[in-house]
Amino acid sequence: MDQKRRISSEYEQELLQVRRKLVVMAERVQKMTLKAVRALVERESELAAEVILDDREVNREEVETDELCMLILARRQPVASDLRFVTIAMKMVTDVERVGDLAVNIAERAISLNGAPPLRPFVDIPRMADLTVEMLNKSVTAFLEQDTVLAEQVIAMDDQVDELYHKVFRDVLEIMHQQPETVRRGIDLQSVAKFLERMADHVTNLAELVIYMVRGKDVRHIGKRD
Amino acid sequence: MDQKRRISSEYEQELLQVRRKLVVMAERVQKMTLKAVRALVERESELAAEVILDDREVNREEVETDELCMLILARRQPVASDLRFVTIAMKMVTDVERVGDLAVNIAERAISLNGAPPLRPFVDIPRMADLTVEMLNKSVTAFLEQDTVLAEQVIAMDDQVDELYHKVFRDVLEIMHQQPETVRRGIDLQSVAKFLERMADHVTNLAELVIYMVRGKDVRHIGKRD
Repeated sequence: MDQKRRISSEYEQELLQVRRKLVVMAERVQKMTLKAVRALVERESELAAEVILDDREVNREEVETDELCMLILARRQPVASDLRFVTIAMKMVTDVERVGDLAVNIAERAISLNGAPPLRPFVDIPRMADLTVEMLNKSVTAFLEQDTVLAEQVIAMDDQVDELYHKVFRDVLEIMHQQPETVRRGIDLQSVAKFLERMADHVTNLAELVIYMVRGKDVRHIGKRD
Repeated sequence: MDQKRRISSEYEQELLQVRRKLVVMAERVQKMTLKAVRALVERESELAAEVILDDREVNREEVETDELCMLILARRQPVASDLRFVTIAMKMVTDVERVGDLAVNIAERAISLNGAPPLRPFVDIPRMADLTVEMLNKSVTAFLEQDTVLAEQVIAMDDQVDELYHKVFRDVLEIMHQQPETVRRGIDLQSVAKFLERMADHVTNLAELVIYMVRGKDVRHIGKRD
């Protein structure tokens, strides 16, 4: 292989590595999210403790991915779509890492809630978690396959998560009104729903970044402008 | 001026423009934060409506700053500290923009709370806002003057905001326990405190990014690793 081709192939490998790191991080935070909600529903605080440990990996991967991206920008000086890919990857890791932080927040609330009698059967919270994980899954596929249609589906799904959040919020509020002794637990449950709703917001950011990456057009804030 | 010097001076101007845009955005979200809390304390929903409008400017500025940074990366192919500056600026605008979103969230809760009788005199919430704005102010100075000591002060101040958040949370919980009819308003107030606490987290991210930019060393997650 001649020198030029060798360098180009190394460069391809580096871009591939960024892609792979993002996928690994995204898969990890999906598992953490499901585990944190299982810790709550099945009252298994040990699962929650695992989530808290898993987050160290996510934090490590965020720093590594950023460093790799900077190295590529410095060494390879990419332009056009490669440049967009690398800079957007740096923004994406931030959102993925914050999903991991939110899984930890849920795990912490699960530990607190597991120490008291269960407040109510959980129906909507696991649905929120399933939806959020599905959104994250679709975002990753959209990212890998440069699929803006899929990314737009993710953005649309965020409304379902918001609706479920408001439903949990109202249901729990009603219980707290009627049984003031449940206020502490009720607020913890509302927080869990809120954390899932924020996760879905971060995943929506990911989908918007995929669209931006593919089309070179910024769709962020378009909904907000209305 | 010869050709090379002209280009270099244009490049300097572009970097300066990124810097200026970040400062303008940061100042705007500081004002929005104070205005949103005043809307609550002085029960002036018109101020809250202003905050919601101001956020459009912040969103516009985020997109513009990102585009400018991408342009610089593509055209000038910066290396070393300039590269770090540009990529970190792209991360910083995300955090600043989210502080703006949180000011909007506070403004929305203020409008809701202003429609009901006041729950309690506000003492800790304005203190949280003042602290957060002071942190943001110091972060901007640290960024402009490459002052890592100041950035570390910002990181340390985050604990004070966290403490105040937990104080507001407990105080409001107590009121809700004793007067279940206040639960709705209590939760809105706790949310306002939570939004301020999240703002301070974003500002802490900014300070960590300043340290990373200056030292070329990543301090993110160091606290979390313990």
